[in-house]
Amino acid sequence: MPGTPNASSLAGWNDGVAKSQILNFVAAVTRQGGPDFVTPADRIAVFDNDGTLWCEQPMQVQAFFLITRVKELAEKDPTVKERQPFKALLELDLKTLMGLGKRALLELVFTTHSGMREEEFELIAREWLAKSKHPRFGRLFKRCTFQPQLELLTFLRQSGFKTYIVSGGGIDFMRACAEEIYGIAREQVIGSSNKLRYEIDGARAGITKLAELNSFDDREAKPQNIALHVGRRPILAFGNSDGDLPMLRYTKTGKGLRLALLLHHDDPDREVAYDRDFRLSPLSEGLEKADAYGITMVSMKRDWNVVFPTGS
Amino acid sequence: MPGTPNASSLAGWNDGVAKSQILNFVAAVTRQGGPDFVTPADRIAVFDNDGTLWCEQPMQVQAFFLITRVKELAEKDPTVKERQPFKALLELDLKTLMGLGKRALLELVFTTHSGMREEEFELIAREWLAKSKHPRFGRLFKRCTFQPQLELLTFLRQSGFKTYIVSGGGIDFMRACAEEIYGIAREQVIGSSNKLRYEIDGARAGITKLAELNSFDDREAKPQNIALHVGRRPILAFGNSDGDLPMLRYTKTGKGLRLALLLHHDDPDREVAYDRDFRLSPLSEGLEKADAYGITMVSMKRDWNVVFPTGS
Repeated sequence: MPGTPNASSLAGWNDGVAKSQILNFVAAVTRQGGPDFVTPADRIAVFDNDGTLWCEQPMQVQAFFLITRVKELAEKDPTVKERQPFKALLELDLKTLMGLGKRALLELVFTTHSGMREEEFELIAREWLAKSKHPRFGRLFKRCTFQPQLELLTFLRQSGFKTYIVSGGGIDFMRACAEEIYGIAREQVIGSSNKLRYEIDGARAGITKLAELNSFDDREAKPQNIALHVGRRPILAFGNSDGDLPMLRYTKTGKGLRLALLLHHDDPDREVAYDRDFRLSPLSEGLEKADAYGITMVSMKRDWNVVFPTGS
Repeated sequence: MPGTPNASSLAGWNDGVAKSQILNFVAAVTRQGGPDFVTPADRIAVFDNDGTLWCEQPMQVQAFFLITRVKELAEKDPTVKERQPFKALLELDLKTLMGLGKRALLELVFTTHSGMREEEFELIAREWLAKSKHPRFGRLFKRCTFQPQLELLTFLRQSGFKTYIVSGGGIDFMRACAEEIYGIAREQVIGSSNKLRYEIDGARAGITKLAELNSFDDREAKPQNIALHVGRRPILAFGNSDGDLPMLRYTKTGKGLRLALLLHHDDPDREVAYDRDFRLSPLSEGLEKADAYGITMVSMKRDWNVVFPTGS
């Protein structure tokens, strides 16, 4: 039957513990009349974005977007080059950004993309995403998604799940591409956000992005924002860093059958090997406590037979 | 064809300007290849709740919930009767609450329902809603919904719309009944919210509601929260008070065909006649500016041939 999900839907996943757990979990929660059946309305699956659905090395995609933006600002206004943190940023690029931490990085993005209407930002982000390529992989950032995860998202939706992104990345930046690259609707994207202001400019009302942070959607904020936006405890969660642990534990410790997964980037040949030392978003507690927390570790090297999508 | 929306779907609406505009609008935005066609993903319809989807007289339903709650608290802890604002509340009930304004009222609700897990609050709200009746209409508050609006919600969903509640009411209180009474999923309910805290109690992680206000979802906050939660500008909005005007104008001033409606409660026989003098949530600017803002006025008396649902 076309469209019926089955094991072959996860062609990019090698046979092993992770794939078995995913297949068994989905079979159990969708088995009508079975002890673990979950109504479709409650089949909520949440995914971190950076490092879970697409590559976050050597920095998150949004950091590259930031550099472009600061360079553009500097072309229009040369004093930008003399002002911190832009000066350091333009002189050092990667090194400066790497040391900042995820939150400071995000605040820089918000600073350089505030004072504009939501639609203006959307255009800027879309244009950048349409043409910008990853420095090492030579493919569009939009195509630095992980093929096995695209398959998993589709498999879950075919199994009646509603798939959400819950990420530290900027909510508007992700919304500018989530539908196109993941098939995830804008309203199912949760992320870090600026404060917003309703304004009327002439006869046209609109929403302006302010420079002030509203929510930094990392760690404890992830389950808190899930409660605010979704109002249901997820039954499946997938992350790749310590910033995802509260979301994974919130998911995993709910009543009934639950599945929580952590992707370990251990494949220097096909992608990058990193965990504890990635300052922008480390994986450390997760490696030590996955067992105790009931979290399934996914090894990129062992569990995936493909990393990036092939073809155009 | 069963399920196909047509004029008879709006049986509770009398023929007139409002009904015509709704039917013409929906026909235009769903006409594939037509000049006003809108893709289903962008067919977002937002509804205020109190006074728009269900009765808010003599006070919002949540105010009655609050009184019950304060009485329960006073039974367990007699000192509550001596403490303000609970003392005034218990002695004067309606009169005190009416003078408070919507925001102060909501803060009282949040104060009396904080320090508990989200699931605990859900149970309390559900139990109260299951048995509590409106003092004048003698029917469950859950059945004080407006029949023509239930028809409109169904008609819109059958026409490919996603229907949202965007209300000053507490988001968790509305989520406790929105699916049952309106067919609106929890994640499509936006409202005023407490700050939340992620906690681990023993091995079980969860979300605790704090006494502090996160967002008072009224006036400018409505379009701001739509931008945060949905990330799309609605094409249809329905309200009944000045608190809805920013949401209605945000909707109406978007590009393309849009529809914004305001319900006027002008039917003292079947419900209540009120507007400017309802301190908890007045309609004043809306009456004066509806024309200028391109908002369609809906008269309960003239446009609806039924108010509350009949039968059980």
